Amino acid sequence: MVLELKIPHGADLDALKPLLPVLLAYILSFIYLGIYWNNHHHMLQATRTVNGKVLWANLHLLFWLSLVPFATGWMGENHFEPLPTAVYGVVLLFAGLSYTILQNKLVHHSKGENSTLGEAVGNDLKGKLSLVAYILAIPLAFVNEHISHVIYALVAMMWFIPDRRIEKKIHQ
Amino acid sequence: MVLELKIPHGADLDALKPLLPVLLAYILSFIYLGIYWNNHHHMLQATRTVNGKVLWANLHLLFWLSLVPFATGWMGENHFEPLPTAVYGVVLLFAGLSYTILQNKLVHHSKGENSTLGEAVGNDLKGKLSLVAYILAIPLAFVNEHISHVIYALVAMMWFIPDRRIEKKIHQ
Amino acid sequence: MVLELKIPHGADLDALKPLLPVLLAYILSFIYLGIYWNNHHHMLQATRTVNGKVLWANLHLLFWLSLVPFATGWMGENHFEPLPTAVYGVVLLFAGLSYTILQNKLVHHSKGENSTLGEAVGNDLKGKLSLVAYILAIPLAFVNEHISHVIYALVAMMWFIPDRRIEKKIHQ
Amino acid sequence: MVLELKIPHGADLDALKPLLPVLLAYILSFIYLGIYWNNHHHMLQATRTVNGKVLWANLHLLFWLSLVPFATGWMGENHFEPLPTAVYGVVLLFAGLSYTILQNKLVHHSKGENSTLGEAVGNDLKGKLSLVAYILAIPLAFVNEHISHVIYALVAMMWFIPDRRIEKKIHQ
Repeated sequence: MVLELKIPHGADLDALKPLLPVLLAYILSFIYLGIYWNNHHHMLQATRTVNGKVLWANLHLLFWLSLVPFATGWMGENHFEPLPTAVYGVVLLFAGLSYTILQNKLVHHSKGENSTLGEAVGNDLKGKLSLVAYILAIPLAFVNEHISHVIYALVAMMWFIPDRRIEKKIHQ
Repeated sequence: MVLELKIPHGADLDALKPLLPVLLAYILSFIYLGIYWNNHHHMLQATRTVNGKVLWANLHLLFWLSLVPFATGWMGENHFEPLPTAVYGVVLLFAGLSYTILQNKLVHHSKGENSTLGEAVGNDLKGKLSLVAYILAIPLAFVNEHISHVIYALVAMMWFIPDRRIEKKIHQ
Repeated sequence: MVLELKIPHGADLDALKPLLPVLLAYILSFIYLGIYWNNHHHMLQATRTVNGKVLWANLHLLFWLSLVPFATGWMGENHFEPLPTAVYGVVLLFAGLSYTILQNKLVHHSKGENSTLGEAVGNDLKGKLSLVAYILAIPLAFVNEHISHVIYALVAMMWFIPDRRIEKKIHQ
Repeated sequence: MVLELKIPHGADLDALKPLLPVLLAYILSFIYLGIYWNNHHHMLQATRTVNGKVLWANLHLLFWLSLVPFATGWMGENHFEPLPTAVYGVVLLFAGLSYTILQNKLVHHSKGENSTLGEAVGNDLKGKLSLVAYILAIPLAFVNEHISHVIYALVAMMWFIPDRRIEKKIHQ
């Protein structure tokens, strides 16, 4: 999962200036991918074996995450305009949905072995809140794109702290 | 194995429109690479040691898979025209052939240790059917390229379910 | 973490000449990334479990290291001019800072288990010296950029030898 | 280590034609990188621990291998002209040299533990022959570049068979 920053021509501050929105989008997406990476790491720590369904659920998540660099670049290079902002939200929404599906498949799959993951995930309030937030942010991008940007930032902040629920359960 | 989506200039729907065929090709190839990834994962789970021949058979497969992003991009950026469609099929055909070779090498190599993989693979009807399908799809691309697209999609659907044969054998 | 060299047009020495500064920057950054890779490898060898804070400290380091290819390319393609030289230093400074943070988090986290890492790191004189060097090099780039280049090279040389302190402690 | 094929504009055979030399260079380099990958795999199988010197020897090898895609692309896009052909040889020469250094470091490092690797490597005739071949091929590129291409192909063929010496020793 690589996010790309194009090297500007020219060596002065003017050459760097158009890069600022791209860098902002880059940071936001880096945090989002970091959140997925960390929670994914925690989730897989709590499971031991995988089956075909889990592998496909994982690839489904990977598909949407693989679109993040594209959505990031498009939004960043167009000064966070409405349509790219909405498309960015669509990618986040489907990434969130596919993460939920993977989580459910893992909980279901590991039920026989141990229920650590299932208990840890619980009712997954944070996950559901994020999906609702994305669903609101997508149409709101066409009303005022800044509302959507604030929503994306708030969701990222909410997830910034890795999933202590699983961490706690493992340590018990 | 990275598939690339070029970031369009402009932030409106018109800028996204030419990306649609590229995205379609991207999804098809993502599924194909996912199939290889999953079955490869299952196959290597059933084996324990590798030798030089297996490593080269694996690199041979990797070579053809490494051409998938190129073939995907070329087909997607040219509205699925006949020649790129046929070239895409050639790459799939050789990827399929090299996968069959790797499978045979692994079955042969692990014969002494255990015959799980050998039994699981069996007569490999799905593998042979895919190769026949690609061989038909390549010339048919010059008759009507849409026939080839349907064939590629059907083969992908046939493989979508990971190789339960091996999964079953392992669990026994 | 990939550093990129653009393929020049033309097959003579003139086509290679503008690549020389890019290659120099590439070598410098390769050594820097190698230093991080090696010491990171040593540091994680001395630790066994990670928690959420360590994962985020690691991603923070990764963020700054992910900007190295950009800073390298910008500096190399602009003949090591003052501003790109300073920006390169800023990226190195924050990479160094985030490495120190990761190190502290790991020492803190592994305190209960064993104090190998803590003892090995000690007062981390080399780490502190590097940060001071970067802080000096950034403004000096606008006085005379060559001073900064010499500083970057000296810091790289100082770190070239991997962290024997940890190596020694492990072997005891 | 990624080799890149640029997607041509146009969907006919004429669009593919200029890609032929690039594809040829791609195949040659894929085989070379495959040889390094396989033998590297075998070599590290015969060793158990690494130290700082080994890590740096490994990064040194990685540096030269990381230049292979650049040298490949430059040679392929310029119809295998003399200078790119010579530069390709220089990269191969230094990759070969750094591999020899890594091998020596590993033999030296693992001497205490077991001498499997040392015995397996022996006098490393193939390694020395390759270096001599590259040293001849580099200046010969300016006499007749095709001689160099034949030499590169012959060396690749000589190495195609993975290092059975180590494989044999391990199985004993």
